[in-house]
Amino acid sequence: MVNETQHTCSASSSSRSDGGSSSGSESSRDNSRCSTPVLDADRHERLREKMRRRQDAGDKWFSLEFFPPRTANAAVNLISRFDRMGAGGPLFIDVTWHPAGDPGSDKETSSMIIANTAVNYCGLETILHMTCCNQTKDDITRHLQKAKRLGLKNIMALRGDPAGAEWEEEVDGFNYAVDLVKHIRNEFDDYFDICVAGYPKGHPEADSYEADLRHLKEKVFAGADFIITQLFFRPETFLKFMKDCQAIGITCPIIPGIFPIQGYHSLRQLVKLSKLEVPQEIKDVIEPIKDNDAAIRNYGVELAVSMCRELLDSGMVHGLHFYTLNREVATTEVLKRLGLWKEDPRRPLPWAVSAHPKRRVEDVRPIFWASRPKSYIYRTQEWDDFPNGRWGNSSSPAFGELKDYYLFYLKSKSPREELLKMWGEELTGEESVFEVFTCYITGEPNRNGYKVTCMPWNDDPLATETNLLKDQLEKVNRRGILTINSQPNINGKPSTDPIVGWGPSGGYVFQKAYLEFFTSSEIVTALLKVLKKYELRVNYHIVNVKGQNITNAPDLQPNAVTWGIFPGREIIQPTVVDPVSFLYWKDEAFALWIEQWAKLYEEESPSRMIIQYIHDNYYLVNLVDNDFPLENCLWQVVEDTFELLN
Amino acid sequence: MVNETQHTCSASSSSRSDGGSSSGSESSRDNSRCSTPVLDADRHERLREKMRRRQDAGDKWFSLEFFPPRTANAAVNLISRFDRMGAGGPLFIDVTWHPAGDPGSDKETSSMIIANTAVNYCGLETILHMTCCNQTKDDITRHLQKAKRLGLKNIMALRGDPAGAEWEEEVDGFNYAVDLVKHIRNEFDDYFDICVAGYPKGHPEADSYEADLRHLKEKVFAGADFIITQLFFRPETFLKFMKDCQAIGITCPIIPGIFPIQGYHSLRQLVKLSKLEVPQEIKDVIEPIKDNDAAIRNYGVELAVSMCRELLDSGMVHGLHFYTLNREVATTEVLKRLGLWKEDPRRPLPWAVSAHPKRRVEDVRPIFWASRPKSYIYRTQEWDDFPNGRWGNSSSPAFGELKDYYLFYLKSKSPREELLKMWGEELTGEESVFEVFTCYITGEPNRNGYKVTCMPWNDDPLATETNLLKDQLEKVNRRGILTINSQPNINGKPSTDPIVGWGPSGGYVFQKAYLEFFTSSEIVTALLKVLKKYELRVNYHIVNVKGQNITNAPDLQPNAVTWGIFPGREIIQPTVVDPVSFLYWKDEAFALWIEQWAKLYEEESPSRMIIQYIHDNYYLVNLVDNDFPLENCLWQVVEDTFELLN
Repeated sequence: MVNETQHTCSASSSSRSDGGSSSGSESSRDNSRCSTPVLDADRHERLREKMRRRQDAGDKWFSLEFFPPRTANAAVNLISRFDRMGAGGPLFIDVTWHPAGDPGSDKETSSMIIANTAVNYCGLETILHMTCCNQTKDDITRHLQKAKRLGLKNIMALRGDPAGAEWEEEVDGFNYAVDLVKHIRNEFDDYFDICVAGYPKGHPEADSYEADLRHLKEKVFAGADFIITQLFFRPETFLKFMKDCQAIGITCPIIPGIFPIQGYHSLRQLVKLSKLEVPQEIKDVIEPIKDNDAAIRNYGVELAVSMCRELLDSGMVHGLHFYTLNREVATTEVLKRLGLWKEDPRRPLPWAVSAHPKRRVEDVRPIFWASRPKSYIYRTQEWDDFPNGRWGNSSSPAFGELKDYYLFYLKSKSPREELLKMWGEELTGEESVFEVFTCYITGEPNRNGYKVTCMPWNDDPLATETNLLKDQLEKVNRRGILTINSQPNINGKPSTDPIVGWGPSGGYVFQKAYLEFFTSSEIVTALLKVLKKYELRVNYHIVNVKGQNITNAPDLQPNAVTWGIFPGREIIQPTVVDPVSFLYWKDEAFALWIEQWAKLYEEESPSRMIIQYIHDNYYLVNLVDNDFPLENCLWQVVEDTFELLN
Repeated sequence: MVNETQHTCSASSSSRSDGGSSSGSESSRDNSRCSTPVLDADRHERLREKMRRRQDAGDKWFSLEFFPPRTANAAVNLISRFDRMGAGGPLFIDVTWHPAGDPGSDKETSSMIIANTAVNYCGLETILHMTCCNQTKDDITRHLQKAKRLGLKNIMALRGDPAGAEWEEEVDGFNYAVDLVKHIRNEFDDYFDICVAGYPKGHPEADSYEADLRHLKEKVFAGADFIITQLFFRPETFLKFMKDCQAIGITCPIIPGIFPIQGYHSLRQLVKLSKLEVPQEIKDVIEPIKDNDAAIRNYGVELAVSMCRELLDSGMVHGLHFYTLNREVATTEVLKRLGLWKEDPRRPLPWAVSAHPKRRVEDVRPIFWASRPKSYIYRTQEWDDFPNGRWGNSSSPAFGELKDYYLFYLKSKSPREELLKMWGEELTGEESVFEVFTCYITGEPNRNGYKVTCMPWNDDPLATETNLLKDQLEKVNRRGILTINSQPNINGKPSTDPIVGWGPSGGYVFQKAYLEFFTSSEIVTALLKVLKKYELRVNYHIVNVKGQNITNAPDLQPNAVTWGIFPGREIIQPTVVDPVSFLYWKDEAFALWIEQWAKLYEEESPSRMIIQYIHDNYYLVNLVDNDFPLENCLWQVVEDTFELLN
């Protein structure tokens, strides 16, 4: 029950004992204290450690494979697929390496940039594939250095396909995946987690199944951390392979690659590429329905579910790797049926964390970018330190410029025509703009019958939490208080609350009510009179595009508006209203009127001039009600303002 | 109403406007954000700025003058006087320079060390006097460097009395206070705030009143920041002096020195030293009652109150400086009658902050030293950084050793005989010890009729807050749960709450329930069984003197147990339970049994062996109930433990 612990003068000396049982087993952690108390494990562990921990906890997991798209538009769509599928809680995703697609370049469709976006902007643990044949050592090293610089931490080391039809060894070149594994370990020591491919039926070019197993063992002994297998059609294929691996001394995790059949043609193509044979019993089902995509997909889902169940039930499989073919429906369906899809994953913080190692400690952000987190990440990507614990301590005011509103991961997912339908082909006055905001809030179609599903300041539909404020928001938007961000006050709800909860369980979360909107100078004048009555209770920042700035906030101090109290932890305050960053956000928020809305219309057109007028003359206002235990007074403030105007 | 503010790429560019009115006027503050949101002004401003701010706010203040004591015992008493009188809220205190008493040395009675203790251990803004005649430049520079190193920020620059009876100028020496002022500014630039003396009746050695005024002007123009005057007996003396100063261009603050007459002899002595004449009307009152100390003091208080009122009513006086003669009663009485004594000063944090500049940002401490703050300050005096915002971020685990339990500011204020009366001349068993703890909690006299007003772990009587837990504490101490630290849970009380409040008004304070005690291994065994039921709710650390350590706390993470939410601020969490520092505290807490208690008895005596047994065999336990919104479960934990034992 009791461990003997002599404590000396170092922080590491105080070791934990087994007096408690439920607090994990990370006893070999380094000396430094966790600086981000919530979710340290998830944010600090490497992929292989996460895998090990999940396995030890008897916790099944899944991962998803994607390939880089061909066009910029497809890249935009893939990134939003990452966001949606990321919500299901994959342990990692991986991005394949397409030698023909300039995979290490800065193109928005390159393997490197897609993986970079997944890690940094979608917060996904990501493995970048890399092939080595027909490449120089220098090329490979350059790619790896770039990957490291971008925050990628995992590489899938592959040989790749030969340039010609036949395979020829190059002298001094990289001829096999094992050469790449060795190179990574030589040049980058233990920095990367390395994954290698396993072939349950043996590699088609291998001399024999046994010879291929020996190659696999070489790759593992050269430094690979785990194995993902080629697809296969029968569970026993994998289970036999796994036992054969273990028999020759391969002890690292081996993850089965699952390919849910999604269509006749994609199956045929894959089979051709992988030189696998489809079992007769599957052919027998598929051939008769080969023109019925839905039927094939249903069958594929059934087949995958039953195979995955058998694998999981074997007790030898802890994680499943899915070849998604960049599609969503079949894989999601399989995962849901297996109970692996986390419908409501616990949020570690109220905003999505980035997976770049240097952002590990980040746990405070200004509230302004709540609906544009990718823009925030982009604009802070050059920061060396991230605020942790307290914004005021380490915040760097050097926000990068957001000059290019068309960075593909920041780009609106809707094309121009769709935006015009939502936001109005022709605006007739400021009231038309009020109407767009109101329709976005209510979810009702606009006067032309189109629903407004996004706004320039908010790529996605309304957050569930914002729905709590829907009625009030509708009322004020109709009257020209054009809201772009808000949160209700919360006085200690359980951290497991499905709508507002975040962080580990057993805690309590709190919020101050927040409201941010554009509005006319006439309304601002009335609002300022009303705010005098609320002087000690409500903090405000009011600014126009020229930088005229009115505030009652204490000298440059941030105001914490979201915080959480957890068992055995320090306090986390992930969201602040910060006067300094508000002025950077202001530039972005005003520019979005022009860049995303006004520019939909012809120059000099009345519609464009209306948006330009708003941009030039409206104020951006934010209000915080500090008295979080009482009923939110911000609606009363707005009500009083309208009353004063009447 | 609106200020034009162009914002560039620097944090300082976001300036405040006059849109709000109540949020102070520190518009000229530097670029860096305040890292300690609560009470930034008080902790970051220099004395001259505080003076200016209080004057601008129409806020009257007082300050207190003390001289260094002759004996170590008197030093202990003076330091507890600092603590008591500091509670009344002086803007600063000052400590005179006694050339005969080796004033710059490390003796516990030196001016330097007394001032150092006031700043660092009592958290008082302090001015150190320094005289310059008969000293070399090098001596002076050395003293100033030492003062700076110790965290002293203010110097009262004086000439001092000549060595012989007659004044003789030294060539190239320091002959006048103005030489010292110039020297400080030359050598230390603007580091120190400098105070100089003013003589409302003219310096006794000056050629004339006018000549003396000119000398004063020289001192101010050489770099003095404000003036404190010699004592005087009539308000009009000061007011005339002040007008005369202003007439010749002295614009800095001039603070009247107030001398409440406290006795016949002290008055005579002071008059002799200062070469002042006591007005006839005062002599007329005093002479007849010269043997009645109480009557003279009452008269002195009356006189001082009426003079101070007249000064304050003139509108020219914003602060009053009191010559206390190291006594407490008369000055406190005058201040209370004037309404300047802050009966319940707002606590900026739940513990007393140190006034050393390098501790300015400190706003998190482990709870363990709550009743021994001076020991905590001593043991962390070598730290370069202090935790700010989050303990886990910047805590240095290098606690200094507390070898010398007899450092005068850590010493018990009670002599050995008194301690024996409180803690028992002769102990008959562990139960006698339980009884001492119980009497300390209840305030009832012990079996010999003595009240237990202090304990080795707790220099002072019980905190008001602990009184909230009195009944429960009594019950458990009787049964051998020997409590040394505790706090109730609090779920959002106003920050102005007279008992548990702290920080700026308009906020809410919170606490997790905490209980720390020594107890036998038998009770620990039962307790651990009980704690299994509370696994997710209660965090515990249980350790014995050998370092056997049992805990269920997440890996080295601190648990915030006191925090506050304030309008327009980040969250403050001033108190944590930290697993690493607990092991340092453990050493101190166990050693106190021996150093402060066991050593009161003869070696080998039964009493000493009882304490030694407890030291060797008991455990130190701390418990945190994480579920602060619910009723504190720690009493139930203890109750369950006793039940299990029965």
